[in-house]
Order: sequence, then C-alpha cells, then structure tokens
Amino acid sequence: MTDAAAKAEAFRQLHLGSRPFVLPNAWDVPSARVFEDAGFPAVATSSAGLMASRGYPDGEAMPKREFFETVGRIAGALAIPLSADAVAGYGRGPPAVAKTVRRLIEVGAIGINLEDLAPAHDGLLRPAGQVRKIRAIRALAQEVGVPIVINARTDALRQAPGEPPARLKEAIRRASAYRDAGADCVYPMGLTDAADIDTFVRALGCPVNVMVRRGLPGLPELERLGVKRVSFGPGASYAALGLLKRVSADVLERSSFESLLEGAISFDELNRLAVPRAPPSPPAS
Amino acid sequence: MTDAAAKAEAFRQLHLGSRPFVLPNAWDVPSARVFEDAGFPAVATSSAGLMASRGYPDGEAMPKREFFETVGRIAGALAIPLSADAVAGYGRGPPAVAKTVRRLIEVGAIGINLEDLAPAHDGLLRPAGQVRKIRAIRALAQEVGVPIVINARTDALRQAPGEPPARLKEAIRRASAYRDAGADCVYPMGLTDAADIDTFVRALGCPVNVMVRRGLPGLPELERLGVKRVSFGPGASYAALGLLKRVSADVLERSSFESLLEGAISFDELNRLAVPRAPPSPPAS
Repeated sequence: MTDAAAKAEAFRQLHLGSRPFVLPNAWDVPSARVFEDAGFPAVATSSAGLMASRGYPDGEAMPKREFFETVGRIAGALAIPLSADAVAGYGRGPPAVAKTVRRLIEVGAIGINLEDLAPAHDGLLRPAGQVRKIRAIRALAQEVGVPIVINARTDALRQAPGEPPARLKEAIRRASAYRDAGADCVYPMGLTDAADIDTFVRALGCPVNVMVRRGLPGLPELERLGVKRVSFGPGASYAALGLLKRVSADVLERSSFESLLEGAISFDELNRLAVPRAPPSPPAS
Repeated sequence: MTDAAAKAEAFRQLHLGSRPFVLPNAWDVPSARVFEDAGFPAVATSSAGLMASRGYPDGEAMPKREFFETVGRIAGALAIPLSADAVAGYGRGPPAVAKTVRRLIEVGAIGINLEDLAPAHDGLLRPAGQVRKIRAIRALAQEVGVPIVINARTDALRQAPGEPPARLKEAIRRASAYRDAGADCVYPMGLTDAADIDTFVRALGCPVNVMVRRGLPGLPELERLGVKRVSFGPGASYAALGLLKRVSADVLERSSFESLLEGAISFDELNRLAVPRAPPSPPAS
C-alpha cells in the first residue's frame, strides 16, 4: 500500500471510533503544523481560510492552479493525513470534478469535502448531479489506488426552500443520496441543535460531521448523539484574525502590547512550523 | 505625483512626528487588512511570518518570484502604504539588490527593510557593501520616481564580536554609515534596553525603529527616548500561532472549544478581509 493509500485508510478509521474525532482546519503551513505538533491525528484545510489568506473570497474565485499549489504546500509539510476542502469541486460535471480530486491526490490530500452549493453561493446544486460527481470521485479513487475519504457537505439546512423542518428533511434526503453514492461521511452545514443532530444521525446511519460554532453541544453530548467528526471549519482563521483585532485595539486605543506578546511563540518555533517535523532522533547505538 | 510616490511620501512623514508610530507586520492578505481596518496608517510585511506561511524558513529560501508575488498580493489588497521586508536584498551586489527593490516597487511596496545579516543567518555582511546597496536603492528610487523609504537594519547587537558595549558601538557605526548612504530610518535588531536606546538614538540623530518584544519600554518612554518607529516584527505570527496552540490544548486536553470561539470574527468579516476595502458610499444626492 502506498503512503497515500495508508494515510487515506488511517483517516477513514478515525471516522469509525465510538467517540467523535476533532478535525482542525488550517489555512497555511504553520497553522497546519501547529495542529500536527499539538497531537491532532489529521488536519483539514478550510477553503474560506486558505482562500482569504491569498486574497480571494470563499468559493472558486482562486485560480485552480493556485488552489492545488496551496493545498500541496500544506500537505507537503505534514506527516499526518490532510483532507482538502474542494468547495463544489472546481468543475461543473463529474469528469471535471474527478480531475480536481485527482490533482488533490497528486498534491498530497487523502480526503476531500465536496459541497452542494453553487460556487458563487447562489443556490443549491441538484442532488442528482452531486451524486454523479461522488460516484466519479469514487471511481477515480479506485483507479489511482488511493481510497480517498469523501465528506459530502449539504447546504440544504440553510439554502433549501421552506421552513426548518422541511429543510432538515431535504438535508437528510440529500445526505442519504450522497452516502449511497459513495461518500464516507456527510456534513450538514449549519446543524447545531441537539434534537436535529439526533434525527439526522439516526436517519443517516453513517459518519456525520458537524462544525464547531456557538450553540453546538459539547463533545460528550456529540458522542452520545453519535456524531463521528467535529471540524473547525474556518474557525481557526476567525479566531486568529479576532486576536489581531484585539491586538490592534490594545495598541491603538491603550498603547499596550500585552495581547501581542502574551502566549506568543518564538522565532525558532515559527521557523520550525514552516517546514516538516524533524524525524525522531535515531536511538543511540 | 503617482499614487506610489504619494504613498512613499506619506509613509516617510510618519517617521517625522514627535511621537513614535506603530507599524504592524502582517504575513498575508487578511492579517494586513485587519490592521488597515483597525486604523493603522501603514502596514509592513514580516519576512519570517510571510515566508513561514508559505512553508519556508526565514531568510531567502523562498524563491524570488514567489516572494514578489506574495508581497504584491498584500499590497494589492491595501489602500494604505505597505513596507516590505526585503531580508538582505535577495541578491549579492548592489545591482541585484536594486533590481529586487525595483520589483518590490512594481508590486506595490513603497518602503523596504534591508538587513546586514547574510541570508542564511551565518554572520554579518560587510558594512561597506551594505552602504553600496543602499546607495544603489536610493538611485533606483530616484530613477523610477518613487521615493521609497529605506529602513536599514543592523544585526550587530547580536552578531558582532565582543561584549555588549562593543556590539552597541558597532551597531551605531554601521547604522550611521547606512544613514549617510541614504537610509531614512535605521533598525538595530535586538535593541530593548532604555539606556542603550537613548545612546543609540542620540548617536544617530535620524529616525530609529525598534521591535516590540518583552522588555521593550512602553510607548510613552519610547517617545521620551526619541524613537520614531515601533514595529511588530513577526510578533503577529507569533501571537496567532500561540493562540492556535492554546486552542489545540483546550480541545485535546479539556474538550473545550472556548478559545476557538471567543473573540472570533465572522464568515462575512473574513471574506471582507480577503479583498480591498469597499470604497465609501457616495453621499446621497
């Protein structure tokens, strides 16, 4: 088994434990390496965080080549598995989306997120088309011998017509179709309510991903509800930039550098986070 | 006067006030835009922060083309002046360093930092060579009509031979030569002691830049000492990555998402920070 195949398998196994695993999303090399050093078993990219970092709004405005290059830069700095947020697949039909995933595997990703929201965030894509894309990705994974972990996101909870119960029903309908098409995990964006999580997880019967946000139940309750994967989404970018806002206010309004200096890492640490971890020293002979 | 020339002039004026101005160093587009939105009059890049973000240690390991591209990405997102850390100039002789600065002006920078430490951090460059580089940059600025602000950094306080008093003397000798060659501001890396700052500022008689770090006197005392520019260095990267370490420990050791969520910005804010500020609405007619 290749290193990529082994990493994909290890990442898939994380979804099958009795407790949810937490997946931190990074936006660049050092943010990913901090999570690796801290002991997370895998890292994901946040499309919003990664794209904003390079000066693009979330979606597919970032040129494809630059997107692959940036994901590859992060994958190349990590020893642990990296899952890439592929937005809506950077392509309209199944062959184009499969080609995107092929490139992501080539640059080192072993998992992907694929959403059913049109790239300009102007509405839901048809589930039948999404199903064909997932099947195409599964076939591609088979072909290249890397059992990539597909996390199929649906935005139906926020974008489908109707009242909340109708939207929850539509999210379940879509996620079920994505699961049947070959998704390993499904990701209902915006699902936070405990009763809705319970309904959703029971209806799906496969690994479910929820995103950390205010109002989400704590990890013990998520475990009880059967959630398998809890991701940061763009949360680490939100938190880091929120800190820079506080640093700015401290400097400009209070002439204080306290929030800049408190809990900061060192120059040597930053330089270590720019590159892959040093391999462990060989045992003394 | 071109926009670039006007920005360079406005940036130079910041060095001539009675009080020090604080210059925050960013590593990517949104970190720079946060500082702009907060009301800082200018932003600088941190070489260590910017390079680490792309997977390179500090120095000149990042390919030149990528360096220019990354600086340009940040400059293009800002309306306020951007000063770029040019490390040791990405070139050995004065013509090569002037060419680096020409490219930085082309991508939108109107100020530079130039250090006298060899790129691999293996010792001080000769001051005579540094003087020739500064003269070449000044001539280039004249030629292209952008009065770029040169901040000449010396690493003599940490890298020169001898005891601290001898190293302070060498830093003053070098900085004086850089000032005479056309630097607008001098930047003695590692200068934090109030008495040494006093000695240094009196000896130079031109704008002096100090970096924020533990042990640096507060802004009122820096003003009394005559310091004109106080920069973050890689401090914002250190702080943001320090926060991600705390976030990681909170999640992995305490199953808590509090430090991830507290004080975080929103999705809409992140997307706004990815692109230039919206121009102010025209007055209602």
